[in-house]
Amino acid sequence: MTEAFGSRLSEVFATSGRLCVGIDPHSGLLKEWGLPDSAEGVRDFGLRVVEAVTGRAGIVKPQIAFYERHGSAGYAALEHVLSAARAARLLVIADVKRGDLGTSVDAYGEAWLTPGSTLEADAMTVVAYQGLGSLAGVLNRAQVNGKGVFVLAATSNPEAFATQTATRADGLSVAAGVVADVAAWNAASAPAPLGSAGVVVGATIALADVGLNESALAGIPVLAPGFGHQGARIEQLSELFGSAAQNVVVSASRSILSAGPTGLEAAIDAARAQVMAACPE
Amino acid sequence: MTEAFGSRLSEVFATSGRLCVGIDPHSGLLKEWGLPDSAEGVRDFGLRVVEAVTGRAGIVKPQIAFYERHGSAGYAALEHVLSAARAARLLVIADVKRGDLGTSVDAYGEAWLTPGSTLEADAMTVVAYQGLGSLAGVLNRAQVNGKGVFVLAATSNPEAFATQTATRADGLSVAAGVVADVAAWNAASAPAPLGSAGVVVGATIALADVGLNESALAGIPVLAPGFGHQGARIEQLSELFGSAAQNVVVSASRSILSAGPTGLEAAIDAARAQVMAACPE
Repeated sequence: MTEAFGSRLSEVFATSGRLCVGIDPHSGLLKEWGLPDSAEGVRDFGLRVVEAVTGRAGIVKPQIAFYERHGSAGYAALEHVLSAARAARLLVIADVKRGDLGTSVDAYGEAWLTPGSTLEADAMTVVAYQGLGSLAGVLNRAQVNGKGVFVLAATSNPEAFATQTATRADGLSVAAGVVADVAAWNAASAPAPLGSAGVVVGATIALADVGLNESALAGIPVLAPGFGHQGARIEQLSELFGSAAQNVVVSASRSILSAGPTGLEAAIDAARAQVMAACPE
Repeated sequence: MTEAFGSRLSEVFATSGRLCVGIDPHSGLLKEWGLPDSAEGVRDFGLRVVEAVTGRAGIVKPQIAFYERHGSAGYAALEHVLSAARAARLLVIADVKRGDLGTSVDAYGEAWLTPGSTLEADAMTVVAYQGLGSLAGVLNRAQVNGKGVFVLAATSNPEAFATQTATRADGLSVAAGVVADVAAWNAASAPAPLGSAGVVVGATIALADVGLNESALAGIPVLAPGFGHQGARIEQLSELFGSAAQNVVVSASRSILSAGPTGLEAAIDAARAQVMAACPE
């Protein structure tokens, strides 16, 4: 039987820590790195990050928008990067924020969460504006294939507040509703210390502000972007997430990537040490 | 100065009607059409639809998930299809439902709404789970380039109901909030009979059930999927959307595509005639 994503993630936490390094080759960073703004540039950027992370941390999160920007050539570059990350046994979270219905959402699951697909990742980010039930095709596929999903719950940008704090008929905020729906999915599908369906919660928000609390996040993998450049400090991990801190994938992008290709290893080592100090592995 | 998307869409409505034909090469349809489930299959499927629509209707909506399923080769196939649709002067709505923040969302706008991009379309669908403000990069780019966006507001699947009817602090439902935010964007940016920012409203829902009404949709392009296979009848167009019916892009996919490669032209002609009868051009 395929090992569940929640178990695989727990193992990565235990052996390589909770740090997740973003792969964000936007035009500004490509320039800083001295790379061309082309499919070759985003490929070389991604391969360099994979090389630097290998042996230093366990998780990478490519932002697919920066590959899509270069069309099919960008996707071919992405396939090289994903292949290198798999070969290095890194856990890959494809940051794609996909969402749809029926055969369309099934197709996204086939693309990103199917062994042998050229775009195969270990997990993907998804959006449940159409309800968690609309993502059943992806959730089911993830479970069968030992893959994971991270559903956007509460994000760090202020414009998100009106939507994510809106009150559902059951009294929950939209953000808390996503978390509750994900918890119910995990409980009904693959009970384990850590479920295979996770959520995205920005590290710069106070949980209570969006109707969340640490106990609602029990047993749910939490992908938390926003550390470093966006303002959250890794030292605040326990303060921000309480007992749920041990489920958190601590994602840092700009703060590490801005060290440039020569400073990358040192920046990763420093961030990993901060994560270990904030929440021992 | 670049012509605004809203004006271009009005012209298409006047000259070629409101019918939009989906390009949905999922595995089931490829099989029915006798095409291989491969990058070549999705390319040939898309090119055949473009050929059949040309001269019969004015708008196509490729569902990008079915191309992404085949990785970079699928994206190369998509680039062929988009190029053929542009050459045929069809208006192309890329159904990608993208959403993100900052440089990431900017990258999506660069990919889909930039003249000269290999993935260039005339409009794209987006998701505002992170608030309409998070999409500013895409909305601004659309305006500069004469492109359009369609923001998911109310969708036809029952699982969407809890989220889309949740009440924001300003008293609006999440779905009505998206519509109001889009209306405000149009009013502040490019006043015209028809704005360049639109919304997606499923044709199988009653507007009142999600806190919407026809006057809220005044001046906003409405992409309405769900006609045909999903249960809404084109004859109901005015009943469903009232005075806003004249802003509606009537999207049909399965009901036309299931006619197969040889029945496509007749199915498009029949659907176009139904749309004209329901809401004269």
